Amino acid sequence: MSNFEFVDGGVCAAKGYKASGTYSGIRRNPNKDDMSMIVSEVPANAAAVFTKNKVKAAHIKVMKRHLSDHTAQAVVVNSGNANTCTANGEEIAEFACSKAAKALSIRPADVMPASTGVIGVPLTEDPFEKGIPSLTSKLRNNGSGEAARAIMTTDTLPKELAVRFEIGGKECTIGGIAKGSGMIHINMGTMLSFLCSDAAISKELLEKALREEVPDSFNQISVDGDTSTNDTLLIMANGLAGNPEITEEGEDYRIFTEALHGLCTEFARKIAGDGEGATKLMEVHVSGAPSKEIARKVSKQVVSSTLLKAAIYGEDANWGRVLCAVGYTDADFSCDHVEVSIGSKSGAILVCRESAAVPFSEEEASKILAEEHVIISVDLHDGSKEASAYGCDLTHEYVSINGDYRS
Amino acid sequence: MSNFEFVDGGVCAAKGYKASGTYSGIRRNPNKDDMSMIVSEVPANAAAVFTKNKVKAAHIKVMKRHLSDHTAQAVVVNSGNANTCTANGEEIAEFACSKAAKALSIRPADVMPASTGVIGVPLTEDPFEKGIPSLTSKLRNNGSGEAARAIMTTDTLPKELAVRFEIGGKECTIGGIAKGSGMIHINMGTMLSFLCSDAAISKELLEKALREEVPDSFNQISVDGDTSTNDTLLIMANGLAGNPEITEEGEDYRIFTEALHGLCTEFARKIAGDGEGATKLMEVHVSGAPSKEIARKVSKQVVSSTLLKAAIYGEDANWGRVLCAVGYTDADFSCDHVEVSIGSKSGAILVCRESAAVPFSEEEASKILAEEHVIISVDLHDGSKEASAYGCDLTHEYVSINGDYRS
Repeated sequence: MSNFEFVDGGVCAAKGYKASGTYSGIRRNPNKDDMSMIVSEVPANAAAVFTKNKVKAAHIKVMKRHLSDHTAQAVVVNSGNANTCTANGEEIAEFACSKAAKALSIRPADVMPASTGVIGVPLTEDPFEKGIPSLTSKLRNNGSGEAARAIMTTDTLPKELAVRFEIGGKECTIGGIAKGSGMIHINMGTMLSFLCSDAAISKELLEKALREEVPDSFNQISVDGDTSTNDTLLIMANGLAGNPEITEEGEDYRIFTEALHGLCTEFARKIAGDGEGATKLMEVHVSGAPSKEIARKVSKQVVSSTLLKAAIYGEDANWGRVLCAVGYTDADFSCDHVEVSIGSKSGAILVCRESAAVPFSEEEASKILAEEHVIISVDLHDGSKEASAYGCDLTHEYVSINGDYRS
Repeated sequence: MSNFEFVDGGVCAAKGYKASGTYSGIRRNPNKDDMSMIVSEVPANAAAVFTKNKVKAAHIKVMKRHLSDHTAQAVVVNSGNANTCTANGEEIAEFACSKAAKALSIRPADVMPASTGVIGVPLTEDPFEKGIPSLTSKLRNNGSGEAARAIMTTDTLPKELAVRFEIGGKECTIGGIAKGSGMIHINMGTMLSFLCSDAAISKELLEKALREEVPDSFNQISVDGDTSTNDTLLIMANGLAGNPEITEEGEDYRIFTEALHGLCTEFARKIAGDGEGATKLMEVHVSGAPSKEIARKVSKQVVSSTLLKAAIYGEDANWGRVLCAVGYTDADFSCDHVEVSIGSKSGAILVCRESAAVPFSEEEASKILAEEHVIISVDLHDGSKEASAYGCDLTHEYVSINGDYRS
């Protein structure tokens, strides 16, 4: 019974947004674009959340300054260099904003910079000198795919999604692109995600909607337990849908946040399922928890278990590792009546009840675990709250990718 | 200037201890022993610390009861089955103790049970019926190696160590065996470790010495971020060295704890270096921290970083991942003046100063990283406290082992 539907168009699906991607020379391979731009026709209300890592990318400090008026109109993102732990990182990010602002005839403070890639390698002005004119000339209404591809690092698939819903008789949309893959955990799920809506919503409520959404979707993603220095989630809402502006937490706000939740949850699945080297999306659903916070923590802990991730890769129904991870979650709840099922879209089987083994068909379990989307359900029987977390299996390929990332 | 030296003999190095290992039928492979026994000639003062996982092995509950008088005389350990999440686990552990007590003519409450292996598979009395008579008949003064081998799971090497020191003119020894390998993190480093001393030390001070030692060695080991349900560290001190009993925190106590620290730190290195699939021991030393606790946390966080572990496997001096892990440590300190060196026993090179890149020879770095013991030194320049943590690289072999553990 949801009030929204998924539509095509990605970050350009909402009215008034264009995007582009190009090769700016940061990466060695000229066949892999490394810079993207997203532009709104008009200035948009905007909000963002960032990594809680104490070591932060330079772009985060700059974006925070530029967002002090809660307004944004464009985004310039590079991949291939994190612009983190570099001496003049903020200057470079400010340069990128000025250059883009000039090309687009907008205010530098309305340009949001972002970077992803290797930490500690100095970034220069050159790629922006070269890339921004190209990005500006290539901007188009169906540029979401190009923009999504140009921000990929070890992602294997571009990630673009959009949801459509109706507010006050007007069709509204939120679209977005994201990149994820490695260094994904805890405080912010994706390294970079940009959401663009045409809904009219006040700055305060846009900020509130984003902050309240993040704990249930992006923050519930874990690929490898590392929290990036660069994680950034930005949302813009330019009001071009023409709906009566959402200024209070009524029905319209509820519809907006429901659609935002649908979009972010699906991005979480896409990011987790395309984790570095992943062959499977692992979704952990915890129910029967004494609080929402505990449900989140337990599901996150289970989805993060290195041993469980390896077992899922091996398609081994090793539920003891689920119990083990439940047990070392740092929260106050009972572990005496835990029930665990392992399932997929095609069905589920019970493998543990009252925190002890129940007989099950290993053959049936193997069949379920052979699927690409594995769902582990944990009922704590210690309350009524629930939450989900999103992760992936740990594979040989993950080790290969990360044993040789810089070269 | 240490007051102790490492000696041979492992868990039997101290006076009055015998040990043995045998095949009891728990494992499928009769060529891999799966049960060990350690016995002291006389009842010993004893103390233990256990996993903080809320899901606990049955043996932990039983050992806690048996240790209520702080006395122990024998240990019976099985590998191949964790005796965790099983309905009658405590009964089975009590049975093992009774059977051993009868065979050894000692009190059942002085027998300490322990288990390691797969979670959730019921354990029966049969292996103890078969194994204990064999273990009893095989007990000998040089049985440490056999006992160490029979508790191995995915360990590739048995772990036995001993240190010798002098108290009150008497030669004292602490010996031990340990097993580690997978599911190793945070609250207790090793899955199972048994230390046997002939020193005379009061129950209170033995307990205190163990509790104060653990945060600096065993708790600073991380192999895969998973905290086992079974982790157990037991120490016995039977007083046969004939030293004046240590009953206060004076010079004798200091010598005892110094030797204990030397022994436990070396066990930590052995366990970490033999982590599942590991090719390298990774030691992280943090200095310049505002508190000991922060130094411990930061070093543990760095040594646990999945991405760094993969980079070390790839012999890639990707120090950005060190900074990243320092930054997401949940503690209050400055990340603005961090210095990082990467080294080995043969030398070290500076790779980051003031939290930014410094030029270094990639060739020299690769040479250092090709060694089996890599030391990463992090100076926070935010205080004067220091601590170390012990881990290993993340390898293809780790994924292979854990993708197929149960079969």
